[in-house]
Amino acid sequence: MYNYKMIIKYDGTAYNGWQKQGNTKNTIQGVLEKSIYLVTGEKIEVHGSGRTDAGVHAMAQVANFKIDKLYDEEKLREKINRNIPDDICVEKLQKVAERFHSRLNAKGKKYLYRIQNSVESDVFRKNYKYHYDAELDLEKMKKASAYFIGEHDFKSFCSNKHMKKSTVRTIYSIEIKRDEKGELDILYYGNGFLYNMVRILTGTLIEVGRGDRKPEEMQEILEAKDRQAAGFTAPAHGLILMEVEY
Amino acid sequence: MYNYKMIIKYDGTAYNGWQKQGNTKNTIQGVLEKSIYLVTGEKIEVHGSGRTDAGVHAMAQVANFKIDKLYDEEKLREKINRNIPDDICVEKLQKVAERFHSRLNAKGKKYLYRIQNSVESDVFRKNYKYHYDAELDLEKMKKASAYFIGEHDFKSFCSNKHMKKSTVRTIYSIEIKRDEKGELDILYYGNGFLYNMVRILTGTLIEVGRGDRKPEEMQEILEAKDRQAAGFTAPAHGLILMEVEY
Repeated sequence: MYNYKMIIKYDGTAYNGWQKQGNTKNTIQGVLEKSIYLVTGEKIEVHGSGRTDAGVHAMAQVANFKIDKLYDEEKLREKINRNIPDDICVEKLQKVAERFHSRLNAKGKKYLYRIQNSVESDVFRKNYKYHYDAELDLEKMKKASAYFIGEHDFKSFCSNKHMKKSTVRTIYSIEIKRDEKGELDILYYGNGFLYNMVRILTGTLIEVGRGDRKPEEMQEILEAKDRQAAGFTAPAHGLILMEVEY
Repeated sequence: MYNYKMIIKYDGTAYNGWQKQGNTKNTIQGVLEKSIYLVTGEKIEVHGSGRTDAGVHAMAQVANFKIDKLYDEEKLREKINRNIPDDICVEKLQKVAERFHSRLNAKGKKYLYRIQNSVESDVFRKNYKYHYDAELDLEKMKKASAYFIGEHDFKSFCSNKHMKKSTVRTIYSIEIKRDEKGELDILYYGNGFLYNMVRILTGTLIEVGRGDRKPEEMQEILEAKDRQAAGFTAPAHGLILMEVEY
């Protein structure tokens, strides 16, 4: 039994998210498993570092799979890439220790949420940015984001009502910047994120930026431990998984 | 009567091309006319510098329209942009002399055809590049492209069988280059291009690059004045109108 680790880039626009479940055939995981089956004849299971929702993208998702035969890394990668659609690409593939598990061993993750904050859209990148044209106060958003840094119970920022496991996570940093063309980037770095957490944090920060909430309210929202206390869920297409750390 | 000139950027993926014709409602021209009507209440006609086919993009298409009332350029541009989808953007809008006509006054055009020439696709730009993974000999393609420079009858490179006007055009330059990631760019610069001409030139150059034709055959193809003599029509999504000169 050999264990292969992959780094995968994908445009999530056309997919029902990462995870294969029930009848959801159109998933990144499903496409990868099918391609690996076509190439090797082995029915394997691909384990991702975490799910991404429908429409969410990845610059470098990490996944691993165990397989009976030994394959040349570069040849296998090339063959998989020849058998998947153009919106998914295996950027790296390498044999790793048998104990490696992309989800269980993940120590940190970086997610980028992109907002195009201008009247004009970014025409050729419209599927990768949330186009929001009202004014946003960057300083207030930065002030609000400071409340999320550190270890907190992020239950208010989790869409999964039936979450039985711990909702405590640590956010190491949140960087917010805007370029001269109106692209507003929010880079989240933490040890892990709950279901929809980055999108709800972003929606809440947008509500602060437009003046509907005060930065100080963030403390109350965290304490409420209630999804209703937080802001809206920002659209999936602005979100991209940038990096998984081990 | 006032005459406004626009520079328009668009992602052609979702449209049936530039030109409104018959029942083709989903066109760039149609969307712009509808937006200008919503904003001004005036039913105007937008004249483009030329049609682009379904799926073809533009970095800077030029168009003009005549309208009864005088509008502030920047305000009008902003209102139009608020009323069009995110895959179209009016980048500039200015009042010009009444005699200006975007098509009749055009003196030159630049088109870029992008090929992703590698096993791996360019995931986030798949709609803007033709992914072609077999090997292409760049030197042979350059040698072949030299036959097209200057004034020629490009009848062999025109898809319109019922073309009654002259099929003589002048190509000033064709630049072919490839970057280290396998993006192969062909930049065409000429005084005008026939229906599908850039895509057929590209398809023919690809056939040279993969070894199916010799560079010297280009002379015979031009002389044949027959569409059947030339190569295949490269897919629309790799093509982008870069600039229109006046």
